[in-house]
Formats: sequence, structure tokens, C-alpha cells
Amino acid sequence: MKQANAKSKLLNAALKLIRTSGYEATAVDDLCTEAGVTKGAFFHHFKSKQDLAVAAAAHWSKITGALFASAPYHDYEDPLDQLVAYIDFRAQLLEGRSIPEATCLLGTMVQETFETSPAIRDACLAGIAGHADTIAGIIRAAKERHAPRATWSAESLALHTQAVLQGAFILAKARNDMEIARESILHLRRYVELLFHHAKED
Amino acid sequence: MKQANAKSKLLNAALKLIRTSGYEATAVDDLCTEAGVTKGAFFHHFKSKQDLAVAAAAHWSKITGALFASAPYHDYEDPLDQLVAYIDFRAQLLEGRSIPEATCLLGTMVQETFETSPAIRDACLAGIAGHADTIAGIIRAAKERHAPRATWSAESLALHTQAVLQGAFILAKARNDMEIARESILHLRRYVELLFHHAKED
Repeated sequence: MKQANAKSKLLNAALKLIRTSGYEATAVDDLCTEAGVTKGAFFHHFKSKQDLAVAAAAHWSKITGALFASAPYHDYEDPLDQLVAYIDFRAQLLEGRSIPEATCLLGTMVQETFETSPAIRDACLAGIAGHADTIAGIIRAAKERHAPRATWSAESLALHTQAVLQGAFILAKARNDMEIARESILHLRRYVELLFHHAKED
Repeated sequence: MKQANAKSKLLNAALKLIRTSGYEATAVDDLCTEAGVTKGAFFHHFKSKQDLAVAAAAHWSKITGALFASAPYHDYEDPLDQLVAYIDFRAQLLEGRSIPEATCLLGTMVQETFETSPAIRDACLAGIAGHADTIAGIIRAAKERHAPRATWSAESLALHTQAVLQGAFILAKARNDMEIARESILHLRRYVELLFHHAKED
């Protein structure tokens, strides 16, 4: 029980520290201090910092997956309403959170490690693509109902929503201001509305 | 002359290594080896790795600024055509380049350093915002001509184009495949076309 607790503390420390300072800048010692566990406990649970990062990506996907699964955007009957409400929900998630708290562990880690750690890269891809798949399901249903002849694919649009969010986080980091991310999310919302509006005209 | 050469070699080494492995993972020794200069030469030109990173951001903006200034998208008479051609140019820039070669130094550095190095963060912001300003000028002219009553601002749309590009790079890194970035750029192109098409209908 105590060991399970140490593991979980280390995973949560990874979420916090890596989103604040990046993967490379976060040392095993920093993770142990943040988690309040010994280095012995660290290496009991994880072979290496990379091993922890891979586990942290899965931990992140589990936490955020639960958040999205219980989010109110699922309550709309029309899948297009669900999609727009999902985008609004992403904007709401920025409110009252600092930049490290509001931004994505996976986008941050993959930026640094895509060439140097295939294991971390693949763990980040699994999380990003897994979430995009849930949005692609909503988009597919919306497309079937409202834009059956549209030439864009639901998968591609779902991945694009994630690209906008990741890029919006980078701009927010550069400006040290979340407002700029919110504006990009509004552009994404407008794009989705125009795409479906346009399809109805055809 | 020899010293100017060493400085320039170090700046180019920074562009290459930081885009490949990130800022933190790139050590002063790695930069010296890549540049073929001594550590003495490094510290003759730069006080620290952070100092080099700030100079590298300015160097990057100078190189890419010249590339964009001479790019063919300026040749169109209609600013809306210029804007669409700019987006196509961004997609063309991905062709025949590896992911480290095709992605952005500034987006990569700021992802890691936004909390830990305000100097690097500000240098990245200056580069991203400076480039966005040139695109905002084009969008402003396109808006005046084709969408004078539209409620979105040229500045906001220009920053959004940069958010999409930065996010597209992250997805490409996660998938280890540039194609996914190209698709997001196509979504951005379609958004711009729909925005202006919609404005004409009003």
C-alpha cells in the first residue's frame, strides 16, 4: 500500500514538474523531492527517468480520459453540438489554471524527446491519438448527419483539433498569457461551424 | 574573422541540435563539437548556454525572416491570394526536410523554458510575434478588401496561423511523420477560405 502510494506520488510529481520545466530539466532527484519519496523508492518502481515518463504519459491519459469521459459535452443529442461543446470545454479547462496546470504533458514531452526517445514519443502518440479517436467518433457522427458529402475526413479534423490546442499552448507559453490560447480555440470553433455551415449549403 | 566564424558556427549548431534534442538536452560540449570550436571560443562569444539560446532565437528569426521576405507569396496582387499562398508556402517548406529541419526552433525552445528562463521565452516570443506581425499585415489588407465587417481581428488570425503550425509540428513529432502536419496546414487553408467566403456572403 505504501509502495503503491509512492508510485502514484512519483507519477503526479512527473505531471507537475515536466509540465513546468520540461522532461530533460526534470531530474530524478527533483521528482523524488516533489513526491516526498526516496531514490530507493523511485528505482523500486521505475527502471529509469524514461521509464517513469512512459508511465506518466499513460497516467496522464487515464486522468484526462476520465475527465473527458464525464464532461458535459456528451449530453447533447446532436453530435455537432457535442463537437462545439467539446471545443468550448477545452477553453473552459484553461480558466483558473496556471500555464503548467493547463497545458499538455504529452505535447511538452514529445517536443523534446521525439528524436532521442522513441519509447516516450510512442507513449505521447498513444495518448494524443487515443484522445483524438474519441473526438473523431463524434465528428464522424456529425459528418454523417450534417455533411455526408464533405471531402475532409473525421480523423483528420479530429487530429487538427489537437494540433490547434497544442499550438495554442505554445503561444500561451511564449506570451506567458493564456488568453492567446483561448483565441486560437475560438478560431477552431469558428472553423468547425463554417465547415458544417458550408456543407449544408452544398 | 575567425571569431565571427566561430560565433556563426555555434549559432548554426544551436539551430540544428536544439531542434533535434531540445534545449536542455543540448550541452555546451555538444554545441562545441557540432560547431568544431573549442569551449574557450564558446565562452568568448557567449556568457552561457542561455545567452547562446537567446542569440540563436534572433539568428533564427533573421534567417527565416529573409526566407519569408523573398518568398513568392508576396507576388500576388490580392492580399487574400498572398495569404493563401503563404499557407501553401508553409506546407512546401516541409517537403524534403527531416522533422528537425522542418520544425521551429522557437516553438521547441519555449516549450521547455517558458517557466525557467524568461530571457529565452521573450526571445522566442519576439520571433514568433514578429513573424505573425508580417502575416497580420497581409491579413489586414485582405480583410479591408474582402471582409471589412468581419468581427475577427487580423492580429488574432495571424497568431492563430502560427498556433496551427506549431501544433502541427508537435503532431508530426509524435507520429514521426510530416504528413500529419501537412493535413493541419490544409485545414488552416480551408479555414481562411471559408472565413473570407463567408464574409462575402454577409
